[in-house]
Amino acid sequence: MTESRLSGPVRVVGAGLLGSSIGLALRERDVEVIVADASPGTVRLAVDYGAGREAQPGDQPQLIVVCVPPDVTATVVAAELAAYPNAIVTDVASVKLAPLTELRALGADVSRYIGSHPMAGRERGGAVSARADLFVGQPWVIAEHDGVRPGSVALIYDLALDVHAAPVEMDVAEHDRSVALVSHVPQVISSLLAARLQHASDPAVALAGQGLRDTTRIASSAPELWVQILSANAESVVEILKAYRADLDRVIGALDQPGARGSRRAVAESLAGGNAGVARIPGKHGQAKHFSQLVIMVDDVPGELARLLTEIGNTGVNMEDLRLEHSPGALFGLAEISVLPEVEQRLASELEAGGWKIAGAQQ
Amino acid sequence: MTESRLSGPVRVVGAGLLGSSIGLALRERDVEVIVADASPGTVRLAVDYGAGREAQPGDQPQLIVVCVPPDVTATVVAAELAAYPNAIVTDVASVKLAPLTELRALGADVSRYIGSHPMAGRERGGAVSARADLFVGQPWVIAEHDGVRPGSVALIYDLALDVHAAPVEMDVAEHDRSVALVSHVPQVISSLLAARLQHASDPAVALAGQGLRDTTRIASSAPELWVQILSANAESVVEILKAYRADLDRVIGALDQPGARGSRRAVAESLAGGNAGVARIPGKHGQAKHFSQLVIMVDDVPGELARLLTEIGNTGVNMEDLRLEHSPGALFGLAEISVLPEVEQRLASELEAGGWKIAGAQQ
Repeated sequence: MTESRLSGPVRVVGAGLLGSSIGLALRERDVEVIVADASPGTVRLAVDYGAGREAQPGDQPQLIVVCVPPDVTATVVAAELAAYPNAIVTDVASVKLAPLTELRALGADVSRYIGSHPMAGRERGGAVSARADLFVGQPWVIAEHDGVRPGSVALIYDLALDVHAAPVEMDVAEHDRSVALVSHVPQVISSLLAARLQHASDPAVALAGQGLRDTTRIASSAPELWVQILSANAESVVEILKAYRADLDRVIGALDQPGARGSRRAVAESLAGGNAGVARIPGKHGQAKHFSQLVIMVDDVPGELARLLTEIGNTGVNMEDLRLEHSPGALFGLAEISVLPEVEQRLASELEAGGWKIAGAQQ
Repeated sequence: MTESRLSGPVRVVGAGLLGSSIGLALRERDVEVIVADASPGTVRLAVDYGAGREAQPGDQPQLIVVCVPPDVTATVVAAELAAYPNAIVTDVASVKLAPLTELRALGADVSRYIGSHPMAGRERGGAVSARADLFVGQPWVIAEHDGVRPGSVALIYDLALDVHAAPVEMDVAEHDRSVALVSHVPQVISSLLAARLQHASDPAVALAGQGLRDTTRIASSAPELWVQILSANAESVVEILKAYRADLDRVIGALDQPGARGSRRAVAESLAGGNAGVARIPGKHGQAKHFSQLVIMVDDVPGELARLLTEIGNTGVNMEDLRLEHSPGALFGLAEISVLPEVEQRLASELEAGGWKIAGAQQ
């Protein structure tokens, strides 16, 4: 066990997925964790899972982490600030300006509050899904605001590092604009696209390929949570959605008159803008590296993919990424293997020599 | 080698990825294939790859498959119909009404033309990327229209089955509406979303997670081809884009006044519509089956994923799907394994017993 940066105790309020995972991660470092929740049953469950202990009179937490839904974050943070006048309080809500504004309106001592937002990847419910390693390697945004007491930011750094996350400092407004762009707007765009499928014919949806599956995957997210997130970050989200709508209007205008002068250029520029935008997304290890892809046919029986990956491992080639694709009705899948361009040819030759069928290759 | 359904010869016009792949697939069945292309060098390359032979005077093809870009499909089909008055002619363009309308305007003998559209999955250029198994298990739409000569549809069935595709009959208009919904509109929506990232700050895009990556993956498609596809299917695409814009307007209106009565309900209904839509997409093997997911940490060194999959194979559990996710800056990846719900618990126990760290589970 590596020594913890936090001295503790840490009080976690809200023992859902995030709160319980923080508790589990800090317990692995032997930090004292106090688990609180509006529901006593939820506290007992999280304690059973090893996320910490129940609260006791006289607890003096060093740090309080509020892990409740966005709608109630400010109220709970304000209550914690009042109840523990010596503690620093943070939260994990995926919006940061709305809770801060509400806290100020409530007259809370925001000099002891600093917001944070762990980018924890996926939404799963409850302590039962909690994992000590939920935050490992993920960005943990520390959202600064004016008038924070010296040392508070450092304390959130310690929390992020203790749970193996990667702390990133941003001011509150920059955070909200950033997550609107990379998370909240994509959710709306994807949900609205998937919504168009509701009344489609069976033969039409039977033609769906990987492109539609990818663009609509997040459309299965829980509406309850997302309504809160979108409402709390409405200003930033709407600004981007309006720019999106202007772009959409341009494409609609062009396709309404596909033969008109300038129409094809307008469509081409929109598509080229997408090329340029997607190139901005960092790849593996935070770099915008380019990999080559090999697509290999894998029979749909247990162990076949393992056999393929073992043989790839034997070549000494490091696989940078892997994606499986199943064809409806087919008795095999396609494994798309990403590797460094300089080793692609050698890997393809060795796999073909080993009897694998390569269904495609792309630089 | 299984006997072919087509007797041949088959003349393939346009020796790019699709044309060359059709040639390779038919040659595997020993069907005589004639390769033609506007560029003699392209023909020679495809012949070198084994896609067929060069054309000779006196060729009497049974079937002609036109594999040229959508913009020139009708012109080339018309020329082939005129040059080979005994042949049936098909094409592989991803739009079907526009070429048919153009053929009729050109006065071509459309009783010998029947459009088709193999859903070939990905766009890669040239004979160099061609694969005999490109169409295996993929839908191959046969787009009917009035006045087709008896026996033509059966011939395209034979072609689809000879290249191991799954033939699906649809009328021309239904095809165009269907692919607008499942392919053309998702391309526009994804490109416009990605375009919003063009001028984003580096810290903002550094927060990008798997959701943004998935929704924008197809935004890296080639604009040249997509301008032709979208222009040729403009009517169907625009109709869906306008409905999409109406939905988007509703969300923008709600988030413009996030505190107004009915605002949250409007947003929630939009998100729930996405839930309902994404549930329409058929899963693996054409069924909308539900799988459980296990997320397992895998060290980022060659061979580790293979070792994991070997151990999964040893448990006898069939992995239904697999997705790898890399955390920026992390020294490991997360492997999301989909399995039937009834075996998830056992697999998790056996993997944990083998020392694997399970980072999450979801029903």
